[in-house]
Amino acid sequence: MNGRGEQATEPTARSLERIRAQLHECAEGRGGEISTRQRAARLAEAYLRLDDSGRKAVLRMIALEFGPDPAQVQAAHSAYQAAVNTPAQWDAEAQLRAAMRSRRLRILTQFNAIPQGVKFLVDLRADLLRFVVDDPQLKPLDRELEARLSAWFDVGFLELQRITWASPAALLERLVQYEAVHEIRSWDDLKNRLDSDRRCYAFFHPRMPLEPLIFVQVALLEELADDVQRLLDIEAPLTDASKATTAIFYSISATQAGLRGVSFGNFLLKRVVDDLQRDFPRLKTFATLSPLPGLMRWAQRNPQELAQVFSASDWKRLAAAGVDGPESPQLAALLEGTSEGAGTCLSAPQLTPALREPLLRLAARYLMHASRDDKPVDAVARFHLGNGARIERLNWLADTSTRGLTQSWGIMVNYLYDPDRIESNLEAFAAGGRIDASTTVKRQAKR
Amino acid sequence: MNGRGEQATEPTARSLERIRAQLHECAEGRGGEISTRQRAARLAEAYLRLDDSGRKAVLRMIALEFGPDPAQVQAAHSAYQAAVNTPAQWDAEAQLRAAMRSRRLRILTQFNAIPQGVKFLVDLRADLLRFVVDDPQLKPLDRELEARLSAWFDVGFLELQRITWASPAALLERLVQYEAVHEIRSWDDLKNRLDSDRRCYAFFHPRMPLEPLIFVQVALLEELADDVQRLLDIEAPLTDASKATTAIFYSISATQAGLRGVSFGNFLLKRVVDDLQRDFPRLKTFATLSPLPGLMRWAQRNPQELAQVFSASDWKRLAAAGVDGPESPQLAALLEGTSEGAGTCLSAPQLTPALREPLLRLAARYLMHASRDDKPVDAVARFHLGNGARIERLNWLADTSTRGLTQSWGIMVNYLYDPDRIESNLEAFAAGGRIDASTTVKRQAKR
Amino acid sequence: MNGRGEQATEPTARSLERIRAQLHECAEGRGGEISTRQRAARLAEAYLRLDDSGRKAVLRMIALEFGPDPAQVQAAHSAYQAAVNTPAQWDAEAQLRAAMRSRRLRILTQFNAIPQGVKFLVDLRADLLRFVVDDPQLKPLDRELEARLSAWFDVGFLELQRITWASPAALLERLVQYEAVHEIRSWDDLKNRLDSDRRCYAFFHPRMPLEPLIFVQVALLEELADDVQRLLDIEAPLTDASKATTAIFYSISATQAGLRGVSFGNFLLKRVVDDLQRDFPRLKTFATLSPLPGLMRWAQRNPQELAQVFSASDWKRLAAAGVDGPESPQLAALLEGTSEGAGTCLSAPQLTPALREPLLRLAARYLMHASRDDKPVDAVARFHLGNGARIERLNWLADTSTRGLTQSWGIMVNYLYDPDRIESNLEAFAAGGRIDASTTVKRQAKR
Amino acid sequence: MNGRGEQATEPTARSLERIRAQLHECAEGRGGEISTRQRAARLAEAYLRLDDSGRKAVLRMIALEFGPDPAQVQAAHSAYQAAVNTPAQWDAEAQLRAAMRSRRLRILTQFNAIPQGVKFLVDLRADLLRFVVDDPQLKPLDRELEARLSAWFDVGFLELQRITWASPAALLERLVQYEAVHEIRSWDDLKNRLDSDRRCYAFFHPRMPLEPLIFVQVALLEELADDVQRLLDIEAPLTDASKATTAIFYSISATQAGLRGVSFGNFLLKRVVDDLQRDFPRLKTFATLSPLPGLMRWAQRNPQELAQVFSASDWKRLAAAGVDGPESPQLAALLEGTSEGAGTCLSAPQLTPALREPLLRLAARYLMHASRDDKPVDAVARFHLGNGARIERLNWLADTSTRGLTQSWGIMVNYLYDPDRIESNLEAFAAGGRIDASTTVKRQAKR
Repeated sequence: MNGRGEQATEPTARSLERIRAQLHECAEGRGGEISTRQRAARLAEAYLRLDDSGRKAVLRMIALEFGPDPAQVQAAHSAYQAAVNTPAQWDAEAQLRAAMRSRRLRILTQFNAIPQGVKFLVDLRADLLRFVVDDPQLKPLDRELEARLSAWFDVGFLELQRITWASPAALLERLVQYEAVHEIRSWDDLKNRLDSDRRCYAFFHPRMPLEPLIFVQVALLEELADDVQRLLDIEAPLTDASKATTAIFYSISATQAGLRGVSFGNFLLKRVVDDLQRDFPRLKTFATLSPLPGLMRWAQRNPQELAQVFSASDWKRLAAAGVDGPESPQLAALLEGTSEGAGTCLSAPQLTPALREPLLRLAARYLMHASRDDKPVDAVARFHLGNGARIERLNWLADTSTRGLTQSWGIMVNYLYDPDRIESNLEAFAAGGRIDASTTVKRQAKR
Repeated sequence: MNGRGEQATEPTARSLERIRAQLHECAEGRGGEISTRQRAARLAEAYLRLDDSGRKAVLRMIALEFGPDPAQVQAAHSAYQAAVNTPAQWDAEAQLRAAMRSRRLRILTQFNAIPQGVKFLVDLRADLLRFVVDDPQLKPLDRELEARLSAWFDVGFLELQRITWASPAALLERLVQYEAVHEIRSWDDLKNRLDSDRRCYAFFHPRMPLEPLIFVQVALLEELADDVQRLLDIEAPLTDASKATTAIFYSISATQAGLRGVSFGNFLLKRVVDDLQRDFPRLKTFATLSPLPGLMRWAQRNPQELAQVFSASDWKRLAAAGVDGPESPQLAALLEGTSEGAGTCLSAPQLTPALREPLLRLAARYLMHASRDDKPVDAVARFHLGNGARIERLNWLADTSTRGLTQSWGIMVNYLYDPDRIESNLEAFAAGGRIDASTTVKRQAKR
Repeated sequence: MNGRGEQATEPTARSLERIRAQLHECAEGRGGEISTRQRAARLAEAYLRLDDSGRKAVLRMIALEFGPDPAQVQAAHSAYQAAVNTPAQWDAEAQLRAAMRSRRLRILTQFNAIPQGVKFLVDLRADLLRFVVDDPQLKPLDRELEARLSAWFDVGFLELQRITWASPAALLERLVQYEAVHEIRSWDDLKNRLDSDRRCYAFFHPRMPLEPLIFVQVALLEELADDVQRLLDIEAPLTDASKATTAIFYSISATQAGLRGVSFGNFLLKRVVDDLQRDFPRLKTFATLSPLPGLMRWAQRNPQELAQVFSASDWKRLAAAGVDGPESPQLAALLEGTSEGAGTCLSAPQLTPALREPLLRLAARYLMHASRDDKPVDAVARFHLGNGARIERLNWLADTSTRGLTQSWGIMVNYLYDPDRIESNLEAFAAGGRIDASTTVKRQAKR
Repeated sequence: MNGRGEQATEPTARSLERIRAQLHECAEGRGGEISTRQRAARLAEAYLRLDDSGRKAVLRMIALEFGPDPAQVQAAHSAYQAAVNTPAQWDAEAQLRAAMRSRRLRILTQFNAIPQGVKFLVDLRADLLRFVVDDPQLKPLDRELEARLSAWFDVGFLELQRITWASPAALLERLVQYEAVHEIRSWDDLKNRLDSDRRCYAFFHPRMPLEPLIFVQVALLEELADDVQRLLDIEAPLTDASKATTAIFYSISATQAGLRGVSFGNFLLKRVVDDLQRDFPRLKTFATLSPLPGLMRWAQRNPQELAQVFSASDWKRLAAAGVDGPESPQLAALLEGTSEGAGTCLSAPQLTPALREPLLRLAARYLMHASRDDKPVDAVARFHLGNGARIERLNWLADTSTRGLTQSWGIMVNYLYDPDRIESNLEAFAAGGRIDASTTVKRQAKR
């Protein structure tokens, strides 16, 4: 694009009327399918030219004016209930279903025939998700679109591809844009992450060939990683991948906001483990090096938790480092959630070792006990435990970037994927929220 | 397969019970998605080993035991109707939709993760279509599966590919199996149909790469074809394709019985015309050479039509050829619908010219006037007119194969695709069943 | 091709003159390279239209009229010899080389720019090889072309590809044409040979993508094969390839007559063994099931060898079967070299077991002792022993086809490729013609 | 590589002896070809570890110790001359050729079987070209390798590929490294040069798939370009390529130093013109915007030329701009060949217009008349005129980069490729050095 691009425009009443007319033509499917789809293409262009207020207005039109007709639904439903347990039930069910089928979806799927139509709809859903927060009337449209995208992005249609430095530049550019966990700073940084001691995998949809849907970055090592900066260091020596025993998934990023609710991430790790085992038979350990994105926020909201993790001997060591007690300004700074606060505190040479054990205990408690609806509040923990991982180890000062310090005092966690335990972990977690963890982590989490 | 293959087995009560248990596991999605899909794979294998009685029993289980719960639908519907025109309507609609969502589809879509899962479901639908004829209770399952397949086989996902002699043998083997119009007799016959004066195109789904969904065979000529035998003749000289002015679509075959109701055929011809125009700028005429599969059957059911097309002068010429009148055995033989009947009659040197005009008139009337629900009864006519073609010309003795003689006395028709008229034809036909035809054909169709 | 093709034409004196003029234009490279190559294309077409007499005339023109100039060679050689051991030697060598560089090759390489130019030159060399037998003046041209083709078909440029039923039909068609060992009778036969318990590999040149240069057919078995009919049987049950311990190379065919003298066959087996070991880690044994194409002919020329292999006890058993002695008509028939002779004899129920041991001894002697220039006279033995194989086992009635019976009384041989012995075998064979063989075969070969 | 890489090492006497032994093994081809090539691989690694002194020593070994044997050549040559005009001539020629065949090439071609072997040899030739300048004894080795590379890089084996932003990053990285004319400053700059109003094409060898051999960058415009800065401006608006009438080749870079003397560049432009004409039928003009790399240097060596191009009226205008006459410091600065000199002078507001005409005349004279061996001294002119172009227009201040100012006062030239004149231009230039030029340029070049 080179920075140039059309300006989004505010809609006029007239332009919205024109769009409403086009929506009706689409919904009725007048003329051949070909001309209908041509209209869809014009409509898509009109949509893309609009600013947010215009887009919201169009989505509201679709949501509110093309839904099912309550009277028809009523009639079909009565017929259905009357037919239950009679031979007519099956026809009646089909007819009720037909009455529920809205013209909203008919409009939307017509976009699929334009070039890049799938991507258009995924992006439209992303708009929808932004608007639906304040506008519940958009919800049925969102649900219908989500259901259709779920059908289209069924994991059976996705392709796992390895991404390398020989991949298309247009695709690699996306990695740079989408990397959500550890920012890719340059093409050199990217090239380093695709070097011979790294692997990068992504899922693709056949109609979005240069758009990774979710991707994972893997480092091949000879031991469990405890420091993400070392992994990202461009100057670090290459490992001999053929000797690696451990694969560390150090970054997993979903890319398409519009696919929220469409699940395929858990298949990714399973498939990647299979692929790595085939290429590197010496690999024994598959684990992540993951952030605890909600730890600091949780500690701020639950100051008593922070207070409890300090034992008497901790206080002694802290006192030796010049910290007076629970009310000391240093400890307060710890909870400030600014990188200065956390950083100053952690860089004090005597303070750091004294804080290590209490804060790791806090992190363990957070992962094991801070829950909502029987599942951990931490989104990353929820993802990995839901995929059958166990909490293996907490790592002190493992991410000293601003983000790492402000969200978790630099603490990171290794989730371990043990092929022999994945399925049982996953069922136990799904059924009752039981969390698998190493003995050390369990001990740290005890009061 | 080399002829060897497992024997289909009759189900035992015990094996059906085991399958029922597996279906419940699938429907509940217990355990991780991975193990659920593994169960689906075992289930698919069990299904494929069953004979028809067993398959039907399994499909009935899915249809009858995993449908929506009428009581839940009832409750959700009441809430929905109560919420109409209130802010709660939109949530209520989503919930009614959720109540309608059956576990049938949940079971079926899990098959999509097995290798060749899409093909498995398409073939399962083909089973379903055979069974539903006698078993209307399968209808809601059929409709749900059709809707899902329609989503998956949306034309936006299909790929147009040219098929050549350099295409995979496994793919070409399918053409031989699926060619529905003019049987491919050998690999030499096939190679001839892929020669430099021919084109063959097909639509493919990204997950069924060696399975053409629908394919069309095209001959590049210097004039409108009137004889399909000449087109199929292996010994005929090659045309210089670069001089061709006319593209004849002489065979269109849909291959997947399980995709009935999922429309993509009309996009095929449009896309093929585009592709041909780019490769051969001298092409001006795009037409078919098509059978009239229902002509004979229609004439048998409507003997008065046959009677009416003979004018007084026709009778004179027939009398000269030794045919006594409407009741003569020769004319009766014409309607017998056997190749001997038709063939004997048409091969009589004096009779043939005398029959030509009356039978062409009969064919014209059949195409123009024999209709059901405002559309022609002839399936091929319905397809092409529905795509915007016009009836250009009727050809006498254009297909003298057994099939050609017995279904239409060897008469074939050219449907013409005039890029400038396609859209208007298509709309007029869709709206009121108006048929575009050449002056000659219109005249022939007049009483 | 469909049977139609232009007739080859006899050249006229005038057409040959025109070609001579074109050759001169090519040799001088007048005009741009582009127009020179266009002339080459016209020349190639003219050549292809000629019959053998015409082609030979053209090749003679190139060979005799565009060679190096003896006087220039003389001068450059004198300068070179004068410069030996002086600083001028190196320039002088380059200039002598330049004087030797003939315009023949300049003409030929211009063909490489036409589409399919490489194939054209390979086929032209095949013509040349046919003509050179009777016309030694063509020899320098042949040698120059062979040297150039050796450079172009360097094994570093070749690609090993697995051939499957999903390979292009145009490629598979070549297998049918080129299979030299066991004729492929139909597309079904071919499909059987590409089934899941088979492998087929070929070398390709990047500029002849649908032309396999040499291909090998492999059967995956659980034991050493001793019967080629069983391998070729379309009705035989499929083996489970994942359980195979033995890979049998049962057919190796070079396809391009024009590449005689350009060696790449020995790389093929090495590469295929590597590929198979990776895909099927349980494979332990790599062996051929090979014909003895020259056995019968050798026995006919050396009747005393046949006489010697019968021991006294053999004669006793033969007498019991009604064979009077060395001069009996049955034994004479054995040497007739007709399938009737061999067949009748071998099908006699009592005779067959009595002939088994003596004829296997004869075959062993033939392989181990019948040699020319220190190498076996048998071309197949020369190929495999030269690649490092050992003679593992002789198999009685292993090929009962007409060809098998008439060339070796149906006897076939397993050459074993033992990865641990290949290199040492190969060096010993290359250095002194030492043949590696199993104890049994060695014993059979003893007098 | 990320900056890390092994240090090149100086050779020890012992390591050179080991290499000498390996060279002899390679040359003799002892053992199987496979083991010979394995030795070649070890040799290649040893070579790559050496510093320049070591590499030169190895290349000298190959050049001096593995050449033809003068005595054998002597004998073969005598036999050949004796056989001239006898039937034995043809065998004798082949034998002389065999005697000339050196073991040098045998050693080198063995490298071709290692992965990346072709690239290894191309790079080895680049070393050789550096060393041969001071060491003529390497010349025969260089010539033999050049001849072999010419065979391998025959234009018939090369593939023209379009390079886009969807090309592999590893390939695009090469463009950045190799761009010789207008430096690519960043990935954004590169992306801009691959945008929709640009085209980039390269030739590739099948065994060096990510290594462009020569590439050309094209801008699609609506008029003849006269300013290269505008072409390279990332911020410039996109042109609508479908309306373009003019294709400007604004950068052509050969990438492989080791392929000097192997010609394929002239095929590139011809093939690119064909490709562009097919994609953009409205294109009428194909031209370059090229530098005059030798203009300044030539003017410095021929000051009288500079003096002559100023007419009396030029002097008047210059005097008005404060320039005293031919000896003025401003004019002297012009010839300094520093960007300050040229730049200061050209940026003087009154001076610039006064210099324009005289300097364009100088450039015209340089292109049309400054010649060596009947061909222009300017390498770029030699390339394009040798390909059939004509000198269409000289452009003032068309390249104001440092390089542009210091080599030609910013003057650039449009060479025009007129499809109708290419062949005749090319022949006339090849035969007698005749240069095609527009009337304007011819007038400018007149004294």
